[in-house]
Amino acid sequence: MTEQPTIVAVGSVALDSIQTPWGKTQEALGGSAVHFALAASYFSRVKLVGAVGTDFPSRYLELLAEHQVDLEGLQRLPGKTFRWSGKFGKDLNHAKTLSTCLNVFENFRPRLPESHRTADVLFLANIDPELQMEVLSQVQSRRLVALDTMQLWIDTKPEPLKELLAHVDLLFLNDEEAMLLSRESNIYRAGKRLQSWGPRALILKKGEHGSLLLYRGRWYPLPAYPLETPKDPTGAGDAFAGGFLGQLAASANPWAPSTLRQAAIYGTVMGSFAVEGMGTEVLSSVTPRAIEERLADYLACLAAESPSIPAPAA
Amino acid sequence: MTEQPTIVAVGSVALDSIQTPWGKTQEALGGSAVHFALAASYFSRVKLVGAVGTDFPSRYLELLAEHQVDLEGLQRLPGKTFRWSGKFGKDLNHAKTLSTCLNVFENFRPRLPESHRTADVLFLANIDPELQMEVLSQVQSRRLVALDTMQLWIDTKPEPLKELLAHVDLLFLNDEEAMLLSRESNIYRAGKRLQSWGPRALILKKGEHGSLLLYRGRWYPLPAYPLETPKDPTGAGDAFAGGFLGQLAASANPWAPSTLRQAAIYGTVMGSFAVEGMGTEVLSSVTPRAIEERLADYLACLAAESPSIPAPAA
Repeated sequence: MTEQPTIVAVGSVALDSIQTPWGKTQEALGGSAVHFALAASYFSRVKLVGAVGTDFPSRYLELLAEHQVDLEGLQRLPGKTFRWSGKFGKDLNHAKTLSTCLNVFENFRPRLPESHRTADVLFLANIDPELQMEVLSQVQSRRLVALDTMQLWIDTKPEPLKELLAHVDLLFLNDEEAMLLSRESNIYRAGKRLQSWGPRALILKKGEHGSLLLYRGRWYPLPAYPLETPKDPTGAGDAFAGGFLGQLAASANPWAPSTLRQAAIYGTVMGSFAVEGMGTEVLSSVTPRAIEERLADYLACLAAESPSIPAPAA
Repeated sequence: MTEQPTIVAVGSVALDSIQTPWGKTQEALGGSAVHFALAASYFSRVKLVGAVGTDFPSRYLELLAEHQVDLEGLQRLPGKTFRWSGKFGKDLNHAKTLSTCLNVFENFRPRLPESHRTADVLFLANIDPELQMEVLSQVQSRRLVALDTMQLWIDTKPEPLKELLAHVDLLFLNDEEAMLLSRESNIYRAGKRLQSWGPRALILKKGEHGSLLLYRGRWYPLPAYPLETPKDPTGAGDAFAGGFLGQLAASANPWAPSTLRQAAIYGTVMGSFAVEGMGTEVLSSVTPRAIEERLADYLACLAAESPSIPAPAA
């Protein structure tokens, strides 16, 4: 493979105002497609599909361009950029949304440029499932399709969402969303039910407790990377998907269990960087060297060199 | 090593009445030392130190004896056996205590038989830290000392507990207890602070989210074994310690990081059996063959055969 693999990613582009006990941001670069694109950019070429308003700071466009993110599919619409404002308590597990202003996203209809109609990976980041379906119908050729969503769509559009699942290869969800969508109280039963609706593989994200990959009937759990000073979990799930799919898109054999697990390891690493800074602070500035070092450190935690285990005494 | 390694374990022996959404027990065999002893019995010889009343059913003594648990240090005192009654909701994460009757444990003073004064491992399961200290002072020779406790003692006897930590090699705690005792809101900072008070290694238990081993400044997280139908978490932490120490006691080199991680793998497996049945139901009846099979299955989940990971693209 001489060409870099490409990922078409559709999702939100936002200006986020976030408060956590360890910092705050004001109208900082955010949105599901942005966190994803930055994380994936270290491994693959990302073509971002979304919309911004006329007020979107050009320095944010430059930052994305510096990460080789293709912005041809990013629509500049009259009006204001989507804004989200949220607050986290000390445990960082749950955001309290202070305000959401859809703005240009209210009338956004994705239109993919000709150059986006073939891709190695199509990632449908968290937006309205009906828009995700529109994008899906416009991409004619791709090796795999992955989807993320959020509680809002599970509550308000469960049927379009279920319909989408039948067309998706990989589903990313957090644990609570998985139980909500499947109506199962146990996370493993929830995963198996969701998988029966379509996706070949499922990745359930558990925040500080890591992730669970379900593939071919087997669970591959991964703990989180240990962080003593997490700052802001915003976008961590999208960064996880970015590391995961960025790595997977570059793989010759994406459907080997070991490839998927390796992708989850990269997802964990990129998710950990996302949490270490406010907004996209670390994701936009981390070096390939730092990624490599964290990867080595994480693998040492997993003790991948673990010896073979003797059987218990009879 | 031709002789089986020995573990002296002191802790509660109880009659438990438990309700979960999936079953209930009435005055069933329970207590921290019992869950521990049954789990450890598959790997090492356990000498149990504790107390029961005159009402303690002989069939429970027989069950322990069948697992080669040495009962010479189990005092039969006039009065009733310690009783605990609790109820779990659907998420199984938190017990609601319905009643606690200390009974013979109110005046229990541990007196170790001569044969218990040397051991490979001394395990101070969850009882009053002042009693744990008494036991510690009576054991003259041991390779390592491990300790578990609970929120009650963190709240009521933090100073004796802190004093104990200075004499302990291994500390088992659940995550909430660790943050409470250390007064840190981050689990990794909590662990490092606790370790600075004495223990060489620390194992933080996170229930359905697995465990964290801290040793020589490095974290070794392990996910839980995936269980689709958990029934009753009572005693899972003690069963974890039983698998961990039962395996560790049998190791030639207990202070190698890989040995400790291997012990945590056995702890996870024995903890998973504990959760699968009501009370000691599964722990008392599981076969060495079933343990081996679960171990293999868990290792496959951990994908210990994971290939070496290439560096990210520069």
